Amino acid sequence: MPSLDLCFSPELLPLYELRGKVAVIVDILRASSTIVTALGEGVSQVFPVASLEECAAYGQQYGGLTAAERDGLPAPGFDLGNSPFGFLDAARPVRGQALIISTTNGTTALRRSLAAEAVVVGAFLNLAAVADFCQRQQRDVLVVCAGWKGRFCLEDTVFGGALAERLAAQGFDVRSSDATLAALHLWEQGRADLPAYLLQSAHVRRLNSLEASQDFEFCLQIDAYANVLPLWQEDRLVDAALNAE
Amino acid sequence: MPSLDLCFSPELLPLYELRGKVAVIVDILRASSTIVTALGEGVSQVFPVASLEECAAYGQQYGGLTAAERDGLPAPGFDLGNSPFGFLDAARPVRGQALIISTTNGTTALRRSLAAEAVVVGAFLNLAAVADFCQRQQRDVLVVCAGWKGRFCLEDTVFGGALAERLAAQGFDVRSSDATLAALHLWEQGRADLPAYLLQSAHVRRLNSLEASQDFEFCLQIDAYANVLPLWQEDRLVDAALNAE
Repeated sequence: MPSLDLCFSPELLPLYELRGKVAVIVDILRASSTIVTALGEGVSQVFPVASLEECAAYGQQYGGLTAAERDGLPAPGFDLGNSPFGFLDAARPVRGQALIISTTNGTTALRRSLAAEAVVVGAFLNLAAVADFCQRQQRDVLVVCAGWKGRFCLEDTVFGGALAERLAAQGFDVRSSDATLAALHLWEQGRADLPAYLLQSAHVRRLNSLEASQDFEFCLQIDAYANVLPLWQEDRLVDAALNAE
Repeated sequence: MPSLDLCFSPELLPLYELRGKVAVIVDILRASSTIVTALGEGVSQVFPVASLEECAAYGQQYGGLTAAERDGLPAPGFDLGNSPFGFLDAARPVRGQALIISTTNGTTALRRSLAAEAVVVGAFLNLAAVADFCQRQQRDVLVVCAGWKGRFCLEDTVFGGALAERLAAQGFDVRSSDATLAALHLWEQGRADLPAYLLQSAHVRRLNSLEASQDFEFCLQIDAYANVLPLWQEDRLVDAALNAE
């Protein structure tokens, strides 16, 4: 019986065995939600990079869209910020283009997880796709929370609880890790009104005050992109659902 | 307004500022509970050490009682295991003696926290003493969970939630850290039946199966030693409540 475990911070990854597992990288606000939206709206591939410098350099190399923020606001000199709404603007279609996105926490989590058998990006937006992939893989799953500056954050953890609930229904063991148990409990508490629950968090409120709160509400929609699965291949993320067709 | 934050694992301590703060070291099952019990039963001072070798060496140097376990069972060649009941045996009074106790997770958490202004040991057994100390200090508090092999564990976190609740009532800010919020939520869920709640945890069940479950029930008693406060001084823990008299 495969199991699901949760790593609350990339800083704790050295304690976990990744080999042979599926790593689900989570940065709900907003990198993983934005990446899912981008692929869902037809972006061909996504290059997550850590720094603004890399973002600019990759942009020149690959000629795609660049997306970057600094302190929660769009960084000057790039095509887009890190808002998912950047990919929903009819005036600037994104279909078929590559995306280079700068995300500090998310990139760290992803790069430290590459020893896993498969690395995918998870968000509430594509919860069904992630659960389905894990179920088909029948491997142990490690949810890697990007966290907030290396620390525990509520929204990534609650996502882990939501995924654990779905995989428990498929026979996964979600009872052998205290982190998973806690995530399940927090998800059970918050699910009825996820926005209200997460707005308790000081860093969520801080982020929310920076951009229109529509980003926040958008990122908490469950299964809005139920078929989109960002899967790591060589040096980029592609939509596995699309590639399998 | 001082704040309370929670560090889920000694591995995450590099992310936290300790200077000027009160560090509360927590290893509910069982090191911190046993240390509180020992001081409550009249042990004069406690030397926490990591290894069995140090435990034996300190024992010879200081001539006190030695307590050690290996894989959850009493280690051969020492006076006591790590059960609090070792200090409640009328046939072997402990009053006035020094204690050298081997505890891997707890010692790691403690030694990595020594940059704090004050370092105390917290357990459900002395929750009131810890809350009172923090309230009188009026400094930021960091609860350092010993965790389970460096990972998140439920019982230490739930203790953090219980302490946060008490300090919130004293005006402490417990809303600026997601870790504290999560701990408060888990405490709220578990408080009505703490043993049943914590027995969900696989590692708690494993520990519980090794020794009589009386240890487990004992460690979850709230304020059984409401006046005992293990405080780090130079190289050992002493009962601050006693020393202040």
